[in-house]
Amino acid sequence: MITLADARRIIAAAEKKAEEIKQPMNIAVVDAGANLIAHVRMDDAWIGSIDIAINKAFTSRAFDIDTKTLATLSQPDDDFFGIQDSNHGRVMIFAGGIPIKKGRKVVGAIGVSGGKGKQDQAVAEAGAAAY
Amino acid sequence: MITLADARRIIAAAEKKAEEIKQPMNIAVVDAGANLIAHVRMDDAWIGSIDIAINKAFTSRAFDIDTKTLATLSQPDDDFFGIQDSNHGRVMIFAGGIPIKKGRKVVGAIGVSGGKGKQDQAVAEAGAAAY
Amino acid sequence: MITLADARRIIAAAEKKAEEIKQPMNIAVVDAGANLIAHVRMDDAWIGSIDIAINKAFTSRAFDIDTKTLATLSQPDDDFFGIQDSNHGRVMIFAGGIPIKKGRKVVGAIGVSGGKGKQDQAVAEAGAAAY
Amino acid sequence: MITLADARRIIAAAEKKAEEIKQPMNIAVVDAGANLIAHVRMDDAWIGSIDIAINKAFTSRAFDIDTKTLATLSQPDDDFFGIQDSNHGRVMIFAGGIPIKKGRKVVGAIGVSGGKGKQDQAVAEAGAAAY
Repeated sequence: MITLADARRIIAAAEKKAEEIKQPMNIAVVDAGANLIAHVRMDDAWIGSIDIAINKAFTSRAFDIDTKTLATLSQPDDDFFGIQDSNHGRVMIFAGGIPIKKGRKVVGAIGVSGGKGKQDQAVAEAGAAAY
Repeated sequence: MITLADARRIIAAAEKKAEEIKQPMNIAVVDAGANLIAHVRMDDAWIGSIDIAINKAFTSRAFDIDTKTLATLSQPDDDFFGIQDSNHGRVMIFAGGIPIKKGRKVVGAIGVSGGKGKQDQAVAEAGAAAY
Repeated sequence: MITLADARRIIAAAEKKAEEIKQPMNIAVVDAGANLIAHVRMDDAWIGSIDIAINKAFTSRAFDIDTKTLATLSQPDDDFFGIQDSNHGRVMIFAGGIPIKKGRKVVGAIGVSGGKGKQDQAVAEAGAAAY
Repeated sequence: MITLADARRIIAAAEKKAEEIKQPMNIAVVDAGANLIAHVRMDDAWIGSIDIAINKAFTSRAFDIDTKTLATLSQPDDDFFGIQDSNHGRVMIFAGGIPIKKGRKVVGAIGVSGGKGKQDQAVAEAGAAAY
């Protein structure tokens, strides 16, 4: 179970990384039910990334998968092409969403949006590592 | 303009009040464009209140009004009955959303959901006072 | 048929009235197909009224009726209670939308939102009269 | 901050260009919060482009980017493939949306739709240059 205190620690680690790479981000954490625990938009981060960060976190827990991996699986002609049309627009198929695990068990996820794929991914990894 | 630091101070004050009255809450802050800056769900707060807190904040800035006041204006036969059918399900017409002002100018809003109307309102007021 | 030049004349007349009564408004004009021709948000008018003004205009042409009249017909226990659940959230059931007529034929509509019902109605009437 | 007077000047410049190239257009301007300030549909412009123009403007401000650039970044296998599935159908990934800047700061955006990509882009550029 991820508490609000956990989510804040995860977000703080992600923010620190975002500051290091000088890219303001939206950062969101969801629980085991894929429901939002906390979200922050750093100053000057994209408005359009609010929805994306929250839904990358949703997606990662909804399918227990990195959205970076899902990105390759959902390209045209691949197995999951079309998954993005499900769940009322909540499935994000590009890097920045990572499941948060307790041992092998997925207990939630982090979603990051505000830069290029590699940047979002790096910030999400820093956040997930802080659980 | 409300920074993330401002939003965190507002949320911290709201959380403190929520703890005092022993009612876990969802708390959200939006900017002048009615776009989300930060959201937290306190441990054990309702999942269904995530959306409500965020959208009470949206509503308060979208119409520069307390949602408590809007509640009375949107009753059947009153002036704003039907406003809840606009803006794609984002208009919340019960207490807990309050505009945040700099002098007379509305620069954002706080939205709180998780308890009864009076509780949500009290927590939102505590938050708004911390700007 | 309402041209863009017509829509601008209608909006200008509505804006003039809004300035007279000192209430900034969102003003929208739709054509015979209920499709938007033009919209303006006056400085300091509510953000939440963008959607409402456009959809009051839609509603007035969609049902060839003043939204003020529709408001009374869509109260609980009345004939059209429930109409607001149709058309994907585009039906507005409070004053401020008025059909624009050429003789007896409805050729479009104006929608106004930003104040109380009487204010929206007065501004919409001023606009409609300028066709 | 973009006023309604600014938005009208931007739209007038865009319209002038649209007339020069003889292609009727939908033209929209949003503010720093990505909320609509004004929209016009020139006579005979596509009805289906109302939504596109407004949402190209939204997209350009939401991600502080030309939608023409976003078009290349959101192709299959590229970094932002899938971004169009976010924000509830409001992300437009083809040319015609341009951020409006005050110095380096994005203060809003223009969105144009009604012709081919190059035409939409040319008209949007003419509009943006008038701020």
